[in-house]
Amino acid sequence: MDKDKLDPWGTSSVKDYSRLHSEFGIEPVAPLLPRFKRQSPHLSRGIDFGHRDLGRIIDAIDNHRPYAVMSGIKPDGAFHLGNKMTADDMIFFQSLSKKAKVYYAIADVEAYADNGLSFAETAKTAIRNVADILALGLDPERAVVYKQSEEMRVMRLSTIFSRGVTNNMLKAIYGERQIGLYMSALIQAGDILMPQLPELGGPKPVLVPVGADQDPHIRLSRDLADRYRSDFDFVPPSSIYHRLELALTGGYKMSKRDPASGFTLDDTPTEASKRVRAAFTGGRDTVEEQRRLGARADICPVYDLYRFHFARDDEHVERVYYECTKGIRLCGECKQEAIGLVRAFLEEHHKKRDALMNDARELLKKSRDFLASTGKE
Amino acid sequence: MDKDKLDPWGTSSVKDYSRLHSEFGIEPVAPLLPRFKRQSPHLSRGIDFGHRDLGRIIDAIDNHRPYAVMSGIKPDGAFHLGNKMTADDMIFFQSLSKKAKVYYAIADVEAYADNGLSFAETAKTAIRNVADILALGLDPERAVVYKQSEEMRVMRLSTIFSRGVTNNMLKAIYGERQIGLYMSALIQAGDILMPQLPELGGPKPVLVPVGADQDPHIRLSRDLADRYRSDFDFVPPSSIYHRLELALTGGYKMSKRDPASGFTLDDTPTEASKRVRAAFTGGRDTVEEQRRLGARADICPVYDLYRFHFARDDEHVERVYYECTKGIRLCGECKQEAIGLVRAFLEEHHKKRDALMNDARELLKKSRDFLASTGKE
Repeated sequence: MDKDKLDPWGTSSVKDYSRLHSEFGIEPVAPLLPRFKRQSPHLSRGIDFGHRDLGRIIDAIDNHRPYAVMSGIKPDGAFHLGNKMTADDMIFFQSLSKKAKVYYAIADVEAYADNGLSFAETAKTAIRNVADILALGLDPERAVVYKQSEEMRVMRLSTIFSRGVTNNMLKAIYGERQIGLYMSALIQAGDILMPQLPELGGPKPVLVPVGADQDPHIRLSRDLADRYRSDFDFVPPSSIYHRLELALTGGYKMSKRDPASGFTLDDTPTEASKRVRAAFTGGRDTVEEQRRLGARADICPVYDLYRFHFARDDEHVERVYYECTKGIRLCGECKQEAIGLVRAFLEEHHKKRDALMNDARELLKKSRDFLASTGKE
Repeated sequence: MDKDKLDPWGTSSVKDYSRLHSEFGIEPVAPLLPRFKRQSPHLSRGIDFGHRDLGRIIDAIDNHRPYAVMSGIKPDGAFHLGNKMTADDMIFFQSLSKKAKVYYAIADVEAYADNGLSFAETAKTAIRNVADILALGLDPERAVVYKQSEEMRVMRLSTIFSRGVTNNMLKAIYGERQIGLYMSALIQAGDILMPQLPELGGPKPVLVPVGADQDPHIRLSRDLADRYRSDFDFVPPSSIYHRLELALTGGYKMSKRDPASGFTLDDTPTEASKRVRAAFTGGRDTVEEQRRLGARADICPVYDLYRFHFARDDEHVERVYYECTKGIRLCGECKQEAIGLVRAFLEEHHKKRDALMNDARELLKKSRDFLASTGKE
């Protein structure tokens, strides 16, 4: 059997999430669940399966101490379901304490370097992306959204870090890569550690919600936090990992690079419905067989749509799972129900987002002014 | 015989400058000398021995077209004789045309990353370094001095470039290095190419005066200019190379890392005199032998002091050379004369520089305002 491979830039395969614990030192989330006063769907449904030092965040919540939640987006297009996954976690952990502050990076330098998108183009996309997270529930009062192209601190940190790492260390974490990818990794480490700079309140727990395939970035950041502890007194960042969502096309993971594998929050309800209708499922070859054996929810991206995003509540997810695996529900009707939920979500989301475009601009401006005011000589 | 090795971070050996032409494609300066209406001591004394595309700069001068002269300093200490060498070239090429503009980078991010110097510390050093170049003759009206820690454009460019290079390309130019040095190289390429950005007047010839050991950075910048021509329309930067000055201690090259090998423009005349008095020379073992054979100016760092910096004029250099190699002048008296010149220079320089500290602050501030005004969304 192949070893699991976690690769933020390639095709990751995670066959057995429990093995991530033994192989990579990712801790299971389940034992910590009793410590939460309130759980998100990601927690109660086992979507957030693993973490590093999540206890440090729960401690901060319990003791009303400041912590940060750090995430970001490459503004190279519409907000897709994978972005929503991370945003949902970010927003949930922001909501757990008045002492939580979100830092959200718009990776426009990466979008330029990787996709040739001008800063003018990505500035527009960024506003829309920020309106998306506001529509998903971000509290703008405790959020700082910045563009990499304007945030000198991230660049400074990545340059500093580049002197503290060795090629062997990067190779051990990422494998043999081109320098551009290593540099991108160092910039992400700068994003993750920036909230702990003195002018931003100094050392504090920082939670980074990510897909399991992004763990190498977390390991690098934690390693750098240790290496630069004497300079910055960094607290090693914490992370929480969500499962990878199955591709509608049947692949192991939805990906921005393969639009048919999912849909975006910009898609019309009709476009999204088409994708769902055409989706791969865990259904059997014949109706008879499915009635007899039940379908396989565990390999079904339509089931993932319910579980990860669109079910009304946990009970709804459980009912879909039960009816599916017992052969009570057939794939056609199941898709039809999912389509109804997707349509309703998108219609509502588009309405909210359109109303929040100005708030998004405001948040970007307010964040920029705030960060400029903390700039030091 | 060993091949010549040009290594910006290590010990370079240049045994025969003419071989740099055949091995690295560096062109000799001599054939272009008739095109200069006025020559600097570096040109007339053969100190500036090689170049790449210097003709492009002379064309710009002749045609009254804009060009830039790009250089910089790591603000990790006092201005030393090597910095003066580069500054002298920079100032000379600025003086040749009203259309010339100097860009001078204060590499404070590097000083932090390499030497652990805080931005507060390097900010002070930078003012002093800038006062030094003003005292050496820089025209502040056509100069932009910036700190790497404040110039987002350099960081953006280096990030962009990191995606356009391959590990093999960097290895071919620099040998196998740690990523921090590669990153430093990409930042320097950002410095060199920044003056050609649209908001700074767009594509134009840029001259970079450097020591021969810095040629790899020039090759990288020229290579990147080609690679990103379709995006930025970069003109490949030009360079002019000065000889490496012999160390007072007898080594092949003065170095900031070995303070005894030279002196700085912060040293008192007495300190500098001591270094010169203790210097290695090209003298013979006995007076008799020296009278008979003459001394060896070609391996003498004291002769280099005359030739590179402190002789009154070219005729003076020639006379010292003649008297030395003919055994007319002995090392003791030669050092005594050199000490007199060094003392006079330093006394004058300190006076000028102290009077220019405020102008240095002004230039930094003016440059910062200028660059901020050209920042674009």
